[in-house]
Amino acid sequence: MTRVHVWGASGYGAAEAIRLLDAHPFFELGALESRSHAGAALGDHFPLLRTTPYVFSGEGAVLAAIRPGDCVIAAGAHGEALAHVPAFIERGARVVDLSADYRFDDGAAYGLSEWEHNVIADAKLVANPGCYPTATLLALLPMTALKARPVQLIVDAKSGITGAGRKPATGSLYAEVAGDIRAYGIDGHRHQPEIERSLHAFGIDVPLVFTPHVVPLARGMLADSYAVFNAPLDEHAVRATYQAVYAGSPFIRIVEGERVPSVAAVTGTNDAEIRIDVLGNTVRAICAIDNLGKGAAGQAVQNLNLMLGYPEETGLHARAIVAG
Amino acid sequence: MTRVHVWGASGYGAAEAIRLLDAHPFFELGALESRSHAGAALGDHFPLLRTTPYVFSGEGAVLAAIRPGDCVIAAGAHGEALAHVPAFIERGARVVDLSADYRFDDGAAYGLSEWEHNVIADAKLVANPGCYPTATLLALLPMTALKARPVQLIVDAKSGITGAGRKPATGSLYAEVAGDIRAYGIDGHRHQPEIERSLHAFGIDVPLVFTPHVVPLARGMLADSYAVFNAPLDEHAVRATYQAVYAGSPFIRIVEGERVPSVAAVTGTNDAEIRIDVLGNTVRAICAIDNLGKGAAGQAVQNLNLMLGYPEETGLHARAIVAG
Amino acid sequence: MTRVHVWGASGYGAAEAIRLLDAHPFFELGALESRSHAGAALGDHFPLLRTTPYVFSGEGAVLAAIRPGDCVIAAGAHGEALAHVPAFIERGARVVDLSADYRFDDGAAYGLSEWEHNVIADAKLVANPGCYPTATLLALLPMTALKARPVQLIVDAKSGITGAGRKPATGSLYAEVAGDIRAYGIDGHRHQPEIERSLHAFGIDVPLVFTPHVVPLARGMLADSYAVFNAPLDEHAVRATYQAVYAGSPFIRIVEGERVPSVAAVTGTNDAEIRIDVLGNTVRAICAIDNLGKGAAGQAVQNLNLMLGYPEETGLHARAIVAG
Amino acid sequence: MTRVHVWGASGYGAAEAIRLLDAHPFFELGALESRSHAGAALGDHFPLLRTTPYVFSGEGAVLAAIRPGDCVIAAGAHGEALAHVPAFIERGARVVDLSADYRFDDGAAYGLSEWEHNVIADAKLVANPGCYPTATLLALLPMTALKARPVQLIVDAKSGITGAGRKPATGSLYAEVAGDIRAYGIDGHRHQPEIERSLHAFGIDVPLVFTPHVVPLARGMLADSYAVFNAPLDEHAVRATYQAVYAGSPFIRIVEGERVPSVAAVTGTNDAEIRIDVLGNTVRAICAIDNLGKGAAGQAVQNLNLMLGYPEETGLHARAIVAG
Repeated sequence: MTRVHVWGASGYGAAEAIRLLDAHPFFELGALESRSHAGAALGDHFPLLRTTPYVFSGEGAVLAAIRPGDCVIAAGAHGEALAHVPAFIERGARVVDLSADYRFDDGAAYGLSEWEHNVIADAKLVANPGCYPTATLLALLPMTALKARPVQLIVDAKSGITGAGRKPATGSLYAEVAGDIRAYGIDGHRHQPEIERSLHAFGIDVPLVFTPHVVPLARGMLADSYAVFNAPLDEHAVRATYQAVYAGSPFIRIVEGERVPSVAAVTGTNDAEIRIDVLGNTVRAICAIDNLGKGAAGQAVQNLNLMLGYPEETGLHARAIVAG
Repeated sequence: MTRVHVWGASGYGAAEAIRLLDAHPFFELGALESRSHAGAALGDHFPLLRTTPYVFSGEGAVLAAIRPGDCVIAAGAHGEALAHVPAFIERGARVVDLSADYRFDDGAAYGLSEWEHNVIADAKLVANPGCYPTATLLALLPMTALKARPVQLIVDAKSGITGAGRKPATGSLYAEVAGDIRAYGIDGHRHQPEIERSLHAFGIDVPLVFTPHVVPLARGMLADSYAVFNAPLDEHAVRATYQAVYAGSPFIRIVEGERVPSVAAVTGTNDAEIRIDVLGNTVRAICAIDNLGKGAAGQAVQNLNLMLGYPEETGLHARAIVAG
Repeated sequence: MTRVHVWGASGYGAAEAIRLLDAHPFFELGALESRSHAGAALGDHFPLLRTTPYVFSGEGAVLAAIRPGDCVIAAGAHGEALAHVPAFIERGARVVDLSADYRFDDGAAYGLSEWEHNVIADAKLVANPGCYPTATLLALLPMTALKARPVQLIVDAKSGITGAGRKPATGSLYAEVAGDIRAYGIDGHRHQPEIERSLHAFGIDVPLVFTPHVVPLARGMLADSYAVFNAPLDEHAVRATYQAVYAGSPFIRIVEGERVPSVAAVTGTNDAEIRIDVLGNTVRAICAIDNLGKGAAGQAVQNLNLMLGYPEETGLHARAIVAG
Repeated sequence: MTRVHVWGASGYGAAEAIRLLDAHPFFELGALESRSHAGAALGDHFPLLRTTPYVFSGEGAVLAAIRPGDCVIAAGAHGEALAHVPAFIERGARVVDLSADYRFDDGAAYGLSEWEHNVIADAKLVANPGCYPTATLLALLPMTALKARPVQLIVDAKSGITGAGRKPATGSLYAEVAGDIRAYGIDGHRHQPEIERSLHAFGIDVPLVFTPHVVPLARGMLADSYAVFNAPLDEHAVRATYQAVYAGSPFIRIVEGERVPSVAAVTGTNDAEIRIDVLGNTVRAICAIDNLGKGAAGQAVQNLNLMLGYPEETGLHARAIVAG
């Protein structure tokens, strides 16, 4: 059993990670550090986890608890990991950081599991991708295997509100989210540079228009990516490419025919559903993930599996709930 | 007072029209015909309308009730209007049809109020646009005033489930819509030809990719239209064009700065909010409407106002509800 | 036209009051004071009100603006009205306070419109009832006209989350409210004493068990009141009593037969729906209101109408939206 | 491995049972019979189960597939089990029926697991309780261990809409459920006699008022039970009784202090949360379950565990999702 500590343990991503780790056959939970919730039972803040025995520890708990061979999931707010993660690594821990802090840092592996397999396996520090980049890159990166290059990329993404975190904010209130749908961060969202960086690293240097939206969902994300080419592509060939690229990936499901990617099909799981259609000069790639699953905690556990040499799907099989 | 009959009166669009007509200063309701609900009180099927005295009439009621000068809102299922509307017109009624039946018929005015003002004013029969075409065309048609022409159009639209009507269907059940977001009609939706036809009529012949989605909303629609050009456009000039085109339109609101089009801002109203951004070679035009308001019943009443020579905003001022 | 100022203008109740006053034939809006939002356009915080021209004023604006004959709706947080309302009255304004501050104060009229008609008409200060007391008292007070007295009262109430206000709080977040239903304030809620006080004032001194719940609704309230007697009552007589009591009340609707009180039937209105059933020794009285309508802003406007001698339903006729 | 067939496999309860059985260490799925969906992949109707390989079989498939030692979960509509279950038993299968058909049949064990342990263990046929009776009886039956007897029982229950099944009906549409809360079946619901029968069997013969409500939830149930006595009870003693009664029950959680039963705490699980408060002469017992979990499929699997001699919690440990 490998011990995994969770630093910044009071957000939605952390809670989902704790749920997954608690059920994992090879991991056990260590310290759950939360400055704001120190001393409280986990179940007082996350009702579904009332069956667990865990209690939040106060500041410094993770650092103090690290023993050689331990891992840490860092789930603090953006900007806070930089001040803590180096010390965790110095103590000998391997770290997966859920924040944006290390996503542009060459010292960290970029944790898009299906595309950075080997780098992640050897890493001491993994920068877990954001939920928008995960959904977008899973849908767009297989295009690097095509000969043609798009001239324009457009990504229209819809996210559940847990993507905004658990910190109280007017815009995240039930009465502001229910009954509405709206774009936000419209002049350049934090995730756009992250998407562009990865596309660039894989050889795609194309103008990108990225529009994130809030929809009335607690969790889930649907990203519709449109790649405009100068000439029509062969749909069969494009689909075959996607099938080939993800042939060995247990969490990626290419759907076709009557099936469309659906948030309901992936909620509570680490799955991604992708559908490819060629419509004239445009390739449309729709991807559905759970923003807290493959978009955060699920991928973090998948990365821990890779780092420790376990099969990547270990502990990530469960189907959450049917309907609702 | 002009009498307005409603044929096919038991759907959501009909109910919303009845609500608007009931409060309208110059219209009074005539027969409300519904084969399936004949004899039932309106308030037994639409709780909010329990305060009204109306009762559904049976088959043939509208035809029998028409007197010269009357109007009819035809709100039957797609495919059913063709068999009834001609008789209404023959009796002397002017008709606004909410279905798709006459949208490709040159004998009918296309009821996109802001763009067909004069034709509507003189028409005996108005084919009310679908909700998707309304949101899309309001956002795209001002581009016809630009010199440049796009090379590709992409429309990513999100609709509340009332767009699917009130007929029981598994896909419209609460437990299938809540917690999900999914594309549908992915291989060519009924609304795409309608959009292309109008674009064509205004001189835009460009490949269109159209992706409709169901989101967990009872009502409301957000359409993100992306027009890809061969070169960057001047944002200021594009915005000025939109402002100019809609300068005299009381229901169109061009928003900018921190404001983004929001379903919550238009729910229960006949408003459309539009925002324009130029992002490299792409113009993004986001439009929010209420699919039952500007996308159906609201625009129908606006068209009746135009047909009868009333100011187009008559009876359409009310702000529905704040929050939720 | 009577000028109405709104003090504490940035909450949900205030916004709903502003919507109603803006459409009212005899009222015009004066200063809209909000310490936290001073200088901002109303429409930047309440998207549906983007069509209005109003801007929030800063601290002291209402007091400075009051002229003889003006009215004030005080919509500040509980505990804050006490420090400001006396000055408003001293300046000559008549005040309706939405907070709990004056509900136990004999110097204020208790603003349960249907039961305190005459007192309200003559009052300089009206303490608007809470949403829970409104729904509960409307359902229970007609029992004072019965000869029999209950031995136990049980009220099981379900409220939309706007009842908790617009101040950001974890428990009001979308992801905490959607998918859940839970009781709260279980050891004695603020509203229980308010309910008991009014029952007492009307001669009902009976033990009350009151259980409020949060349900996944932005707005709306359903209160099921159960009055346990020592012997069965005559259902016909009880219903006749309710019908008689509310015969002249335009907003109270006694429903029976297949109809049950429904939040959807009252959302966005000032209506209350009540249904009475006698089940053995128990009388069940179910009442549906909009917590922001009859439970707050709607009743406030109704009270202003009474205070100024207008018909009580003036400006309160509109049906908000059908479906959703 | 024991084979479990599912008859009437296309509803929500069946799908949830299939999800649980698919993950169960000692059960394997046999035939999944659905007249209406024969030949279709399970994943085409339940998106979350797209990862499973199952296909619906047509009429007669379960009967043909039964081998000695097999079990059947009968999940057909109320009224249909009577015609099929006897044949399943004759072939040698043990059956858990989710419908109401056998709940009043002395030849079947009543499947309220915590209260009929031994009878279930020996049964060939188990009538799984309804969701309302489950939540109500779990909350009320411990009172049989008290000396005092209530004089009146009042149960105010709130259910997610999946309780109405997956058959399309206007009242189950998203646009009719979202934004509303309403009582239904108000003149005597199917579940009231079932509740009274069990109370009677355990010695409680008290008038019951039962009010079921639909709330905007896909799944989940909260039942507030109020037992009115002639004199106050000792809260400590009542709580101790509940604690003692459920001491060995792994799925029942008695909560107190700041914790209240919450649908979010049990969604996707077989748990029941119960809270007891003594308020004057009234004992309030609030119970939260997942209507498809402990209220249907979860309890069915628990009963299969009991029937086959496995620990009752086998395969029922997973925590579904955190938030949303």
